[in-house]
Order: sequence, then C-alpha cells, then structure tokens
Amino acid sequence: MSQDKLIGGLELGGTKTVVAIGTEAGVVLEEERFATTTPAETLDRAVTWLEERGQPSAIGIGAFGPLGVVRGQDQYGCLLSTPKEGWSDISILAPFAKAFPHARLNIETDVNAATLAEARLGAAKGLDDVAYITIGTGIGAGILAGGHLIHGSLHPEFGHLKVPRHPDDRFDGVCQFHHDCLEGLACGPAIAARWGTAAVDLPADHPAWEMEAWYLAHGALSLLSIVAPARIIIGGGVSQAESFHEKVENILREIAAGYFHPLGEGPYIVPPALGQQAGIAGALLLA
Amino acid sequence: MSQDKLIGGLELGGTKTVVAIGTEAGVVLEEERFATTTPAETLDRAVTWLEERGQPSAIGIGAFGPLGVVRGQDQYGCLLSTPKEGWSDISILAPFAKAFPHARLNIETDVNAATLAEARLGAAKGLDDVAYITIGTGIGAGILAGGHLIHGSLHPEFGHLKVPRHPDDRFDGVCQFHHDCLEGLACGPAIAARWGTAAVDLPADHPAWEMEAWYLAHGALSLLSIVAPARIIIGGGVSQAESFHEKVENILREIAAGYFHPLGEGPYIVPPALGQQAGIAGALLLA
Repeated sequence: MSQDKLIGGLELGGTKTVVAIGTEAGVVLEEERFATTTPAETLDRAVTWLEERGQPSAIGIGAFGPLGVVRGQDQYGCLLSTPKEGWSDISILAPFAKAFPHARLNIETDVNAATLAEARLGAAKGLDDVAYITIGTGIGAGILAGGHLIHGSLHPEFGHLKVPRHPDDRFDGVCQFHHDCLEGLACGPAIAARWGTAAVDLPADHPAWEMEAWYLAHGALSLLSIVAPARIIIGGGVSQAESFHEKVENILREIAAGYFHPLGEGPYIVPPALGQQAGIAGALLLA
Repeated sequence: MSQDKLIGGLELGGTKTVVAIGTEAGVVLEEERFATTTPAETLDRAVTWLEERGQPSAIGIGAFGPLGVVRGQDQYGCLLSTPKEGWSDISILAPFAKAFPHARLNIETDVNAATLAEARLGAAKGLDDVAYITIGTGIGAGILAGGHLIHGSLHPEFGHLKVPRHPDDRFDGVCQFHHDCLEGLACGPAIAARWGTAAVDLPADHPAWEMEAWYLAHGALSLLSIVAPARIIIGGGVSQAESFHEKVENILREIAAGYFHPLGEGPYIVPPALGQQAGIAGALLLA
C-alpha cells in the first residue's frame, strides 16, 4: 500500500481520543487510544502519531461539540462555547491543516460520525435515511438524509426538542435552559433526579422505563415527521436497559397510529451494532 | 434559443395545474394554468402543451401528495393513497417519461418545490438551510438542508408532529389519526372548530391568534432542533393574519431561551416572497 493512499481518522471525545489510519471503507488498520487532556497536548499527540505513519491523503474527524461544521463559516472546524475547560473557541482542524497541507479534511460532530458508520457498516447498513439518538448525560442525534449528514445552519440540537409531557410526570426537568425539553426530561441525570436512583440501578420493571420509552418514542416521532428515517438507532448508556428498544418501538407505533409509512414492519428502533468502533470508523468514512 | 435548451416545469396541485417552459434559473418564459381534473386529461394536456413547444432537455415536477419521491423505489413518481378521487396509485412521471424519452426528469412534493424556489429566488434567497411551513386545510413543510431537499425514506409528514398542548387549550383536535398533532390542533379547520368561526373571520386581537402562533412556534422549534434552518418561511391562508409572523417569532424566541444559534438577530420567521409563482418556479429549478 503506497503512502499516499493512507486515510487518517480522529475521534475526539470529551474524555477519550482515538487516532487511526485505515481505509475509506472505514476499516481501521492501526489505532491509538488516549485520554483527552488539554487541546495542545491532545491534538499534538494525534498529529504526531499520524505524521509518524506517513502523509494521509485525507483525514476525517468526529469531535464533541458544540462544533462549527458548516464549510465557509468562520467557525468551521472550531469548538464553540463548551463547558469543557480550555476547549472553547479552539480550532480542531487547524493543527491538521498545518501538518498535512495536501490532505483533504472533513469534520463532523461525533454523533454524525457514528451515524455514518452505523449506516454504512452497522445497524442501518445500506440505508440512506437514518437517525441515531444517544442518551447519556445528555441527549443528541445524528441524522443522515438522502445519504447526506444534516448540519443545518449551525448544527441541530435534538436534545432540546420540546415534547409533550407524560401525563403522570410531575418532574420539572433538568435542562437549565428549557426545563422540560426532551433532554431535560429524559437524559440520565433527569432519570436519577426524578426517581432518586441512578438509571443503571433501576430494575427492569420499574415504571421509570415505561416513561423513558414514552419520551424517546415522542422524540422518534418528531424525527419521523421531519426527516422520515428508514430506521432509528438508539444508543448510549441509558438505552442498555432490558428490552428498551422494543418498549420505544411499541409506544411509537401506538402514537403513530398507522400513519407513518417508513415504520413498515420493523424492527424500526434498534440498538447500534458497532459499539466502541463506531466513532473511529465514522471518522475514516468522513475522510 | 435552441430547442434542446428548453426546460419544462409542471406544478400539479389538487385544484389547479400550471405547465411552463423556462430556464434552469427558475424564470418562466411561457405558462398555462388550468383546472386539475382526471389524471388522464390533466397529464395529457400538460404533455401536449410541452410537446407543442419542442423537446425539453429536462422537466421538473412539483406535485401534491402523498407522493413517492425516492428514486429507485417502486412508487417513485407515483401518487400513493390519496383522498383525491381517481388519483391514488397514478404515476405522474410515466406520461412525461414516455413523451420525452431524452429529457432528465425530477419530481418532488409541491411544498419542496416551493421551498427550493423561495431559497433560490425568494424569502430565503441564498440560504442552503431553509424550512417552509404551509398552514391551510392541512399543515405541511418543505425542508432544504445543506442545499438538498429532504425526502427521508418516503417523505416527511410535518403536520403530524406531536407538540406540547397549549395550557389553555381544551380542544380535542381534528386529526383523524392523532387528534392532537400539530395539524390536528393548528390547521385552518382546527381553528374554525375550536372557536366556532373561520380563521379568516377572527379579528386580529382574538386569543385564537396567540394560541395559533404558540403552536407554530413549537413546530418551528422542532425544526430548529432537528434540521437547524437558517430561516423559516410560513405561508398558506392562515398565516396571512395580521402580524402573525412576528407573533410566532416572539414566542419562538421565548421558548428557545437563547439556546439556538441559528435564530441569530432575525427576522427568522418570514412570509414567502414569491406568491403564486413559487410552485412553477420551483418546478423549473428542480429540472
């Protein structure tokens, strides 16, 4: 394999970073994982690791956000205001552009990178219209529509979608901006605050799970109404509860009332298939 | 102008049809408008009108729905099950493909065609991320994201989005599938049924308008959360009430709570600019 065929990939997470070389098909040939520390240290380490392996013809980056992902905008490739100390207004792209002036660069949010990987290689293989919802400390979504990743004019904030309130829910919500947006009512910390127990410790038959699935089904219905995915993947820690995807799908079918054609026969709501590899495979596919 | 540079356009509405020749830039050179009757009569008339003007190199079509708009699917170019008598399962595309075998054909929903026209020539000129909500007998939306019209795996049904219920609203909703989806609570017939007076006859200071704007602001927030348009156009009969766009924008800014960057300085919620010409201009732009 000649050096100019190398593809580089970077998955920049809030706590861990993965740098890899691989193929345009998303196959990792060699990778290194390390803790995300300061911007200079983290990005330098990734650049140096890639330099030691040659001159990649292209580099794909999936990074945590909020992130400027619209080419031509001033903030393209930069982190915006983020609670992660020291990272606000940092250009993720610049050190790579400087070190690899001949490489084609592309950057996306981490959840969009994972969406692309699951759509090309994983739980939605071969589909061009896919959404990937993650539920953890926050709620986010990546969207592939007609084969294109959606950014919008900055980037969507799926977690801050307004959903109806579950009829039995008296909890205020944890979102500091909107209280009772989807994230405010259904992220991991919201479950813990509402029930006084961390999601991971709630038994499978606890009413928390029916309510959680109800909120996610409403989030999924909003995606159906606006971008009509052929399949919706739900991942992240909270989604690993027993039979969670079946619960969401059942409620979604009930509230959809037979109206939304893309639901088809199902399964429509599925777990991710690529696990920890989705982020870095997606970065390579972005390149 | 040589014959092979001709572009054809068709706007197929539920009640009226417009056929035109024009330019790829969406400029109509000559057009004819007539009532939509049976499929055979309507489509034959459009085909014949175009044939008399030469062989267009491309034809763009914007049609009422539900419509198959995903290339490669069996239903591409066909109306699906529609209440409009005689039109279910009719291929709109087939008579054009037969009469103009060398023309490039493209078909989209009417609201997507109008969205494209407003984004290229009208109220969102120059923007690549635009949504266009129409409120009349139903509620629909067209979405341009990153310069691409969104279909999803069939096509979105924005009107059937679930939104929170206005705290003062005790009305059941008119949607036969979902009762209290956005369309069920905020389309023209819902306003008339809730207040006992047609929307057009409600005075500007009637509380109906604050409630209507509240629902549309929640629909707009869902679009912001999922596709992050740089601007949202609201059109259709109901939107013509006095100061309606300002009302929606004010409520949207309140519920967005400073969180959504694309809102910028505004105006963010605007009326369409092209009026009756949007559909046919959009059809030409699709070609």
